[in-house]
Amino acid sequence: MDLTPLLTASDAKIVVLLLDGLGGYADAHGGTELEDADTPNLDALAEEGSSGLAEIVGPGITPGSGPGHLALFGYDPLEFELGRGALSAAGLDVELRAGDVAARANLCTLDEAGNITDRRAGRIPSPEAAPLVDRIQEQVKLDGAELTIRHEREHRAMVMLRGRGLDPRISDTDPQQTGVPPLVPEPLHPSAMRAAGLFAELERQAREILAGERANGILLRGFDTHEEVPSFAHRYGLNAAAIAVYPMYRGISRLLGMDVLRRPEGLADQAALLREAWGDYDYFFVHHKATDAAGEDGDREAKIAAIEAVDRIVPEVMALNPDVVMVTGDHATPPQMSAHSWHPVPVLLWSERGGRDGVGRFGEGFARSGMLGRRRMSEMMPILLACAGRLKKYGA
Amino acid sequence: MDLTPLLTASDAKIVVLLLDGLGGYADAHGGTELEDADTPNLDALAEEGSSGLAEIVGPGITPGSGPGHLALFGYDPLEFELGRGALSAAGLDVELRAGDVAARANLCTLDEAGNITDRRAGRIPSPEAAPLVDRIQEQVKLDGAELTIRHEREHRAMVMLRGRGLDPRISDTDPQQTGVPPLVPEPLHPSAMRAAGLFAELERQAREILAGERANGILLRGFDTHEEVPSFAHRYGLNAAAIAVYPMYRGISRLLGMDVLRRPEGLADQAALLREAWGDYDYFFVHHKATDAAGEDGDREAKIAAIEAVDRIVPEVMALNPDVVMVTGDHATPPQMSAHSWHPVPVLLWSERGGRDGVGRFGEGFARSGMLGRRRMSEMMPILLACAGRLKKYGA
Repeated sequence: MDLTPLLTASDAKIVVLLLDGLGGYADAHGGTELEDADTPNLDALAEEGSSGLAEIVGPGITPGSGPGHLALFGYDPLEFELGRGALSAAGLDVELRAGDVAARANLCTLDEAGNITDRRAGRIPSPEAAPLVDRIQEQVKLDGAELTIRHEREHRAMVMLRGRGLDPRISDTDPQQTGVPPLVPEPLHPSAMRAAGLFAELERQAREILAGERANGILLRGFDTHEEVPSFAHRYGLNAAAIAVYPMYRGISRLLGMDVLRRPEGLADQAALLREAWGDYDYFFVHHKATDAAGEDGDREAKIAAIEAVDRIVPEVMALNPDVVMVTGDHATPPQMSAHSWHPVPVLLWSERGGRDGVGRFGEGFARSGMLGRRRMSEMMPILLACAGRLKKYGA
Repeated sequence: MDLTPLLTASDAKIVVLLLDGLGGYADAHGGTELEDADTPNLDALAEEGSSGLAEIVGPGITPGSGPGHLALFGYDPLEFELGRGALSAAGLDVELRAGDVAARANLCTLDEAGNITDRRAGRIPSPEAAPLVDRIQEQVKLDGAELTIRHEREHRAMVMLRGRGLDPRISDTDPQQTGVPPLVPEPLHPSAMRAAGLFAELERQAREILAGERANGILLRGFDTHEEVPSFAHRYGLNAAAIAVYPMYRGISRLLGMDVLRRPEGLADQAALLREAWGDYDYFFVHHKATDAAGEDGDREAKIAAIEAVDRIVPEVMALNPDVVMVTGDHATPPQMSAHSWHPVPVLLWSERGGRDGVGRFGEGFARSGMLGRRRMSEMMPILLACAGRLKKYGA
């Protein structure tokens, strides 16, 4: 529902501690990583607060990072969308405007016949890849469109075209297999013919520019344009700050209009940044990536350690006297699957007015009997606002 | 949500063991039938899997067999509909085409004044009823419409008219009481006038044809036409087989485009059929009727026995090494009510990736603390697909 008619002022401060990919599942070998982690500080918050389980997009649906964060911020991910291109652009501090077309670009290796031998150019190291991307930026000439190509990491780059009459409805050029040439970008709609032609020309020139290198071609996917998403400030009246290390999460926060604070070094620095900025904002999004990375690596022990690292900064956060604290994930990343998954994510809500439910530990199995119950993640945002005294009564 | 953009291939096999009318409720006299049944094999699955409770249509809503099975198969029963006529036709292997109008027909007994004395003609035995229905099929002549009438069992038959300009919006002729004459079929919409007239004429001729028999009239209800329901294969990319004894469930499965295997003799034969067909399909729907029949008869002990009979074939099912198993019901049929009811139905999900929740027994009271929580039955289908590795990530 539209909360804007109910919004009211408050000086309560909300902190969201987001452990990326926090959720997991128990199996014959043990509990979830969170259940088995040693988290005395999070358990104390659970004891004083309430718990629940959240599904992010819907039952059985595995969310990407975009939908996962939109839901966290109270945007129904079936209603709002952030494409891969938009996410990449945002993460690289490239401003994507209405009418621009962005895509993910991978450096790849082609053989003499033009067939792909490696879709990631042997995961070419960043120091080697960055100058190749710069060369494309300098040398490609396109008729009537301005090119921006930025190196991300290893074989990954983001490409954007700005010009008149561009439409992102274009098919991927990455065939998702080796032994075949890159696909020609095809317009999926008549109005995308011009953009498809420009991207085809970009790909051709890039091949010339990179000739002789081990990364001697590019693959394009996820063509995307700027989509207007209503800002966090507009929807909730919150002055929000994002404290995140990784580009994508900084980018998502920026797309929603949050202030993105200087790039922190890690958890301790994130806590320090939170303290520094405490007087300036009323909503803080603190993003921790290591849980997801460990899950993706299939490393259960590393995921447990990443959870315990967050537990150790909890006292510093609580020393700031926040009014509302939520600790949760944007999706599950079970080490058993080495990937994102659909499993529900535990949610911990701590607030003077949030209620306490007697659930004394933070974890999936404990949370299922908590007062928050099982719900869609996007439902948590109004509860945070309510706990912060930011929502008026509905109806007389 | 539309799952088709997320579908991906997998060779995982899904088995759904459906105990018709499984759900029940505890009262002063004891637990539910499932709670009180001795089910060591189902309990072992619960121990290794997760449990929950499902509402079929909505809170307080008692589902018929059509909505119950649609929900089981992931079709929101408030969005999709299978009428009684369509179900009957499908169960009798009669193809109902767009424009046809079908209805349920009951043989009844009329007195000399034309008033109903028995709405089921004394539950006339099938060997006596079938020739009467055949006689109607042979002798009725309708102007511009083709009649198909098929005997089902005892007093029950299915009638279908095929012709131009037929509309099923017609009122029932069964007054649901004795001592009054059958009602005249009334058009509920102007475009149904022709069909209503044809069914009135059919009823008149049937009375002439059956004169002197103890079943000497027919009552019509549930006028219905063919509704296009998207196929199971289209929605989920599954190659599905139905293993069911009773016509209605065979019919529903056929309406959704499943392969309906030869009619089995009973549970042991259903297990044998499952084994025979194991290599040919990736989704198996195994339907067990006895639980519902016992509930309808108000026979608690028989319902417990019917549950225990399913428990005994569980080892045979598990010996096939399925990847995903769900055990549940399509609605509750509490013996205390001798009827379908609205009570939530227990759900058991067993799968390598489904998670285990420590709920060690299968039953309503145990399931309420399970990880699946309480949800709509139609939400289980995406979870089964996810566990089978058949759904890609949503969003970047």
